[in-house]
Amino acid sequence: MAYFENVGKINYEGSRSTNPFAFKYYNPEEKVAGKTMEEHLRFAMAYWHTLTAGGSDPFGTDTAVRSWDHLSGMDKAKARVEAAFEFMDKMNLQYFCFHDIDIAPEGSSLNEFYGNIDTIVDLIEQGMKTSGKKLLWNTANMFTNPRYMHGAGSTCNADVYAHAAAQIKKGLEVGKRLGAENYVFWGGREGYETLLNTDMKLEMDNMARLFSMAVDYAKEIGFDAQFLIEPKPKEPTKHQYDFDAATTISFLQKYDLDQHFKLNLEANHATLAGHTFDHELRVARINGMLGSLDANQGDMLLGWDTDEFPVNIYDATLTLYEVLKNDGLGKGGINFDAKVRRQSFEPEDLFHAHIAGMDTYAKGLKIAAKMLEDGAFDNFVEKRYSSFKEGIGADIVSGKATLASLAEYALNNNQPRKNESGRQEMLKAMLNQYILAE
Amino acid sequence: MAYFENVGKINYEGSRSTNPFAFKYYNPEEKVAGKTMEEHLRFAMAYWHTLTAGGSDPFGTDTAVRSWDHLSGMDKAKARVEAAFEFMDKMNLQYFCFHDIDIAPEGSSLNEFYGNIDTIVDLIEQGMKTSGKKLLWNTANMFTNPRYMHGAGSTCNADVYAHAAAQIKKGLEVGKRLGAENYVFWGGREGYETLLNTDMKLEMDNMARLFSMAVDYAKEIGFDAQFLIEPKPKEPTKHQYDFDAATTISFLQKYDLDQHFKLNLEANHATLAGHTFDHELRVARINGMLGSLDANQGDMLLGWDTDEFPVNIYDATLTLYEVLKNDGLGKGGINFDAKVRRQSFEPEDLFHAHIAGMDTYAKGLKIAAKMLEDGAFDNFVEKRYSSFKEGIGADIVSGKATLASLAEYALNNNQPRKNESGRQEMLKAMLNQYILAE
Amino acid sequence: MAYFENVGKINYEGSRSTNPFAFKYYNPEEKVAGKTMEEHLRFAMAYWHTLTAGGSDPFGTDTAVRSWDHLSGMDKAKARVEAAFEFMDKMNLQYFCFHDIDIAPEGSSLNEFYGNIDTIVDLIEQGMKTSGKKLLWNTANMFTNPRYMHGAGSTCNADVYAHAAAQIKKGLEVGKRLGAENYVFWGGREGYETLLNTDMKLEMDNMARLFSMAVDYAKEIGFDAQFLIEPKPKEPTKHQYDFDAATTISFLQKYDLDQHFKLNLEANHATLAGHTFDHELRVARINGMLGSLDANQGDMLLGWDTDEFPVNIYDATLTLYEVLKNDGLGKGGINFDAKVRRQSFEPEDLFHAHIAGMDTYAKGLKIAAKMLEDGAFDNFVEKRYSSFKEGIGADIVSGKATLASLAEYALNNNQPRKNESGRQEMLKAMLNQYILAE
Amino acid sequence: MAYFENVGKINYEGSRSTNPFAFKYYNPEEKVAGKTMEEHLRFAMAYWHTLTAGGSDPFGTDTAVRSWDHLSGMDKAKARVEAAFEFMDKMNLQYFCFHDIDIAPEGSSLNEFYGNIDTIVDLIEQGMKTSGKKLLWNTANMFTNPRYMHGAGSTCNADVYAHAAAQIKKGLEVGKRLGAENYVFWGGREGYETLLNTDMKLEMDNMARLFSMAVDYAKEIGFDAQFLIEPKPKEPTKHQYDFDAATTISFLQKYDLDQHFKLNLEANHATLAGHTFDHELRVARINGMLGSLDANQGDMLLGWDTDEFPVNIYDATLTLYEVLKNDGLGKGGINFDAKVRRQSFEPEDLFHAHIAGMDTYAKGLKIAAKMLEDGAFDNFVEKRYSSFKEGIGADIVSGKATLASLAEYALNNNQPRKNESGRQEMLKAMLNQYILAE
Repeated sequence: MAYFENVGKINYEGSRSTNPFAFKYYNPEEKVAGKTMEEHLRFAMAYWHTLTAGGSDPFGTDTAVRSWDHLSGMDKAKARVEAAFEFMDKMNLQYFCFHDIDIAPEGSSLNEFYGNIDTIVDLIEQGMKTSGKKLLWNTANMFTNPRYMHGAGSTCNADVYAHAAAQIKKGLEVGKRLGAENYVFWGGREGYETLLNTDMKLEMDNMARLFSMAVDYAKEIGFDAQFLIEPKPKEPTKHQYDFDAATTISFLQKYDLDQHFKLNLEANHATLAGHTFDHELRVARINGMLGSLDANQGDMLLGWDTDEFPVNIYDATLTLYEVLKNDGLGKGGINFDAKVRRQSFEPEDLFHAHIAGMDTYAKGLKIAAKMLEDGAFDNFVEKRYSSFKEGIGADIVSGKATLASLAEYALNNNQPRKNESGRQEMLKAMLNQYILAE
Repeated sequence: MAYFENVGKINYEGSRSTNPFAFKYYNPEEKVAGKTMEEHLRFAMAYWHTLTAGGSDPFGTDTAVRSWDHLSGMDKAKARVEAAFEFMDKMNLQYFCFHDIDIAPEGSSLNEFYGNIDTIVDLIEQGMKTSGKKLLWNTANMFTNPRYMHGAGSTCNADVYAHAAAQIKKGLEVGKRLGAENYVFWGGREGYETLLNTDMKLEMDNMARLFSMAVDYAKEIGFDAQFLIEPKPKEPTKHQYDFDAATTISFLQKYDLDQHFKLNLEANHATLAGHTFDHELRVARINGMLGSLDANQGDMLLGWDTDEFPVNIYDATLTLYEVLKNDGLGKGGINFDAKVRRQSFEPEDLFHAHIAGMDTYAKGLKIAAKMLEDGAFDNFVEKRYSSFKEGIGADIVSGKATLASLAEYALNNNQPRKNESGRQEMLKAMLNQYILAE
Repeated sequence: MAYFENVGKINYEGSRSTNPFAFKYYNPEEKVAGKTMEEHLRFAMAYWHTLTAGGSDPFGTDTAVRSWDHLSGMDKAKARVEAAFEFMDKMNLQYFCFHDIDIAPEGSSLNEFYGNIDTIVDLIEQGMKTSGKKLLWNTANMFTNPRYMHGAGSTCNADVYAHAAAQIKKGLEVGKRLGAENYVFWGGREGYETLLNTDMKLEMDNMARLFSMAVDYAKEIGFDAQFLIEPKPKEPTKHQYDFDAATTISFLQKYDLDQHFKLNLEANHATLAGHTFDHELRVARINGMLGSLDANQGDMLLGWDTDEFPVNIYDATLTLYEVLKNDGLGKGGINFDAKVRRQSFEPEDLFHAHIAGMDTYAKGLKIAAKMLEDGAFDNFVEKRYSSFKEGIGADIVSGKATLASLAEYALNNNQPRKNESGRQEMLKAMLNQYILAE
Repeated sequence: MAYFENVGKINYEGSRSTNPFAFKYYNPEEKVAGKTMEEHLRFAMAYWHTLTAGGSDPFGTDTAVRSWDHLSGMDKAKARVEAAFEFMDKMNLQYFCFHDIDIAPEGSSLNEFYGNIDTIVDLIEQGMKTSGKKLLWNTANMFTNPRYMHGAGSTCNADVYAHAAAQIKKGLEVGKRLGAENYVFWGGREGYETLLNTDMKLEMDNMARLFSMAVDYAKEIGFDAQFLIEPKPKEPTKHQYDFDAATTISFLQKYDLDQHFKLNLEANHATLAGHTFDHELRVARINGMLGSLDANQGDMLLGWDTDEFPVNIYDATLTLYEVLKNDGLGKGGINFDAKVRRQSFEPEDLFHAHIAGMDTYAKGLKIAAKMLEDGAFDNFVEKRYSSFKEGIGADIVSGKATLASLAEYALNNNQPRKNESGRQEMLKAMLNQYILAE
């Protein structure tokens, strides 16, 4: 293990530590609300950002300096597997996630790609056995190759659709073999550039057909992972069909797929859709669709997916508040779909970045647990809606009320119950007190 | 009729006319694609913007100069009815739309409000009989009164909920009496300001209950208007539940309300949600939910509902392209939910603004009809998806294909069908040619 | 004093206090970096939001419940003066700010307005004497009255321009009389709605002329307050000339006004212009133009000025970091240009909101002071730019280098100095540690 | 000439032509407002988008199919020169623009880069002689190479700064040799990612020093091109110093560089900064800083630089209205800094796209010229500001008025001049009539 030789194992040293290579808040064994932090958070490394990506952007080439840069092809792919396990070990990460093309080169044919995948999956399987690391989820990348320029499930080219199906089939088999707890679909090119050339209905129908086939095949091979769809509104495609949680749920309902899927929600995708991350979690939660999280953050003044490591304690706290309310994420986890900045090109930055993210979520967990334990927010909400617990309010909730009965009530209601302040400022001050005084 | 004495009847004079008080493109009797323009467009006057509003904004008070400014209370309400019919007559508008509080003052009790409504509805009924004007839709305003600060169907105060129900009940009765072709719900305060004080699930359940009661009551009284929900993502509430077309459809599906409702789509609401207007129409259309339109436009560099009169020919053309594809709007129409700028405070500006909007939509209709007649865009799309008409593509569409059969096909497909250019630039140049050369 | 009878004096009780009506972090007498918190922060009450506003928004009327609601005209204006001093006293605020129309009704003529102002200013002067409270700044409201629909300094109506001048003249006299430390210009209507009807050059020239006249008159009457311009990009006007700090500096430079003005920066205006608040402070600081602050925050997902009370500790910390780097704000201060939410309509909410804001800034001050004291960020920056301290770098900075000398250097530079990581993730983790561990 | 063998010369065929490979509006020899279209528009091909780029985006690799794809290194660079002249010839483009790295590979040293540039510039020079094509501007790319990760003129690494200087020196020499009419600076990395690691003042001072050196060197070698700075607010850098026209002017004023520079304005950069393109032109025009244009358009619902070919007739018309008001662009021109969509990957799409853009601008030119010739808009504006032509208004403009004289006037002004409507809706309808009826 020598891919990250300048950095050793990252340990918990507490909030006063000045060692930049130590956790200040993430203590895997520490109990919070009845479980260890590790059990709650189920952090995962994103193979693509950590092992594969190089820091390019639309105006500049790669900057990253990695110890496997001198290699190429399958040699590089193999080195990355080793580096991945070294990194997870040093970083105290128990899970990882990958797309098929992250781990193995596509080669010049589908057949060759299958072969490359098999070779690398052998190595990964071995690494998992040795290290005890687990696969949170895998997926098929159906957006990078030029083949997918018009989409995969929503392509206008039936042969491309077939190719996508072949990648998914292999992905399900790999997932089964490696014991993946989930299988993810992110439709980066499932959308349109201009309606002038687009048959939206056919495209969405075809997407649904592909999902159904995947459900069938997973059943056929006995792969019982949770299926997840990851919403995102735009980029790379001008408009993507899985715009946000509500839109994706709408799609799944329409095609009777909702019992087979949950959502993999990403923070930066939420904000690109005009929502807070906790909004997306809330929507998923109350619809029984909260599956897993892609932890990162965007820059609210920039209009694209910056995929920054999550360092905002407000967001982390409110996210974990929803997670705790959901009794955890089940098979899901918290995957760092986040990349170091292009100027943070040194290997050490990968560690700094994960420490930043893991500490932020760890601290957020503790704060959220305290908020729930105290019940201050819950009690406020409970009291706020108390008029629906009795009298006319109870009639409304039970379905007894009609427009006529309510109108009659209102006409005769000489002293209507007064509104009370929503107390947003007080609640935000309370939230600050939990965050700052903890 | 003397409320707009400086302006006479607006007539069609053709595109070379330099008379600012004439239609250049809107010729009600002109046939386009088998129907008259008037039949296609079913333009409606929005009572609130044209008769009631005064030009205030968050930083300034009313500026509008109207001939009924010296009146107040019911006298003003009555004068506005007369002015409304004068305006519709001069403007060649066959339909109108209103909220309950647009037409009558709320008074000091619900009972008084009911009485005021009845008095005014008498006048409106008479005016309709005399003039032949029709009510496109009416609705209940459940967002202006402080009572609704926390919402109406989603309020935390059961007595407020009952009041809302009473307004809707009256609204349905008024709609029936006046022969409204639709009844609209716009939930300006149905949403939340902060999740810290919000029970989203209860709020949405209660909203659904209110809609169900409305459906039941309409049936009970034999009011067979089309029910419409109008999506909008934000403003006044930080987050509104009816975010956009897809979200609203998701809500209606979940609560089994989708067979009773269609959507009333507004251009400015579309762009606030991050969509083009034609996107929203397309989503509604392919889901059989396209009901009616609120015609206006936002300023793409401003983040709030500017409700400008629609003057963008691209938007109008693409909007009407979807409408024609939908075989029209059925009971729906095109309502100018648009206001003159605060600096356009003179009565004449109301005419200029409606001429601008009506001409833009009229011209857009003619262009869209020509595009459809020629079939150039349709043919392009047809050809683009032709691979799904035969062979493996047909198997996909028919449901015969499986992941395994597709993977096998892909593995043996030595000469996969090449992608072809999406030709976006050519199509946009074609669109320009239709717009500019027509 | 009985306008806020349900709330007593707000005292500091420390971060563990559960009393919602107590400061958790703001301890006026506590020393931070050599001065008391009160000396650093110079908090001011905004008369308009606290005394005058009522909670209306474009879709709803006032909701606020205030003990002076039953009064009107000058009686209400007088009651508000008393309430203002009671509020400042209870809230521990030493400064306040107002527009002319906040304190006195405009009446039916300019003359009457002058008279009303004089009457109220008498009361304010007396209140100031009794209480020791001070006027941070005053200003003239030249955007609310319909007269200013086309602007004040940038109006197309010379008589309106003259009226604006008359308001400013009075404002300067009032400022002098009350010992205002600053005088502010915010040009809410100084901009345009459409370039189609706008002579931008004349408008900007005229604005500059008005500022010059104000400078001259202040000199003439011996009013030595700091003049401030407050940038804002949009709302109410589609485009405002004082878009942001850089644009405003550009304007002041062009018209040779830069030595007479500094900037009054507002957080929500910064984000509407596409900047962080600390960016705006930095721009102003390095140009010697940092005058005063309007403390609030926007909602990054909403496109208008929400003017929320500032509760984000990141923003507060980075803001005060710039302020401390600037050696304070001089005559400036921190004015809460912030309003309680429409649903926070009870008088108590005014206290909750100010406590939230003052505590956030107090905590931010302590964190920023610690960051500066430790020097960790400063040292990082110092080292990062060290190549400009010697050799070729020093030649560049001193002005000795030329393109030719640098090209020659570069051509012969076989071992160019390597780039080093910008360490953004590590720095953000460090910032979190300061915020959370403090 | 065989690089674009499927497409022949593009000729003008008029607006009724159905030949997709013909101009419908651009007729180079046609006279408009006293000059030929070609003289007005001075269209330029952007070497990077047309010859160098391949269609990659952050989620996908290159898609473009080009006849020089099989080549590499200098062979490819040479082929591109030939293809460039073929394309310009067929496309009827008289100008082109390039960055240094567009035309020649960087090689492994600065020395080698210089050599590669010289070789290619020989070819370009020859091509220019043969074809009569001209260089609108050239520039140095100081953002793509990893070296520039922290900026060029604003880097923290003095050796990188020297390298940038060396590129500019060569760029000026190349510009002189090829008779470039302008020389452009676009500072893609001149900005910051986080203020936590940034010395903004030193960075801006250093940028100014680099510009001064460039001015000096151009003078030294007798290169009299117009120097241009291109503003852009964000992307790739989080915040770029040349945010928009006003900010860039502010920078140039501060460092006494304003007499040496004008602005190269880009449409998509304008909208990313929150402005319309015509706003940016107006700001530049009234400050005497309007230099040249990068013609393209963004997607108003996407937050990054989509660089689409300009097809919006409103934008083109208003842009050319400002250009005509400016008496043309002088040495500047209209460069298509625009790329075909990733799905428009065929060589034909380059033609479709340029036709779309050139036709849109040609039509816009004709409309704008008609608007100016008729004077309808000018007359409206003239009348609107007429109160500043006499009496108190004239006193204001002449500088005679003071606050005191204006206040006195206002106090005695019993019948102030009434405001008149801004007539925005009427003006927009008029604009539509010019666009649609022309």
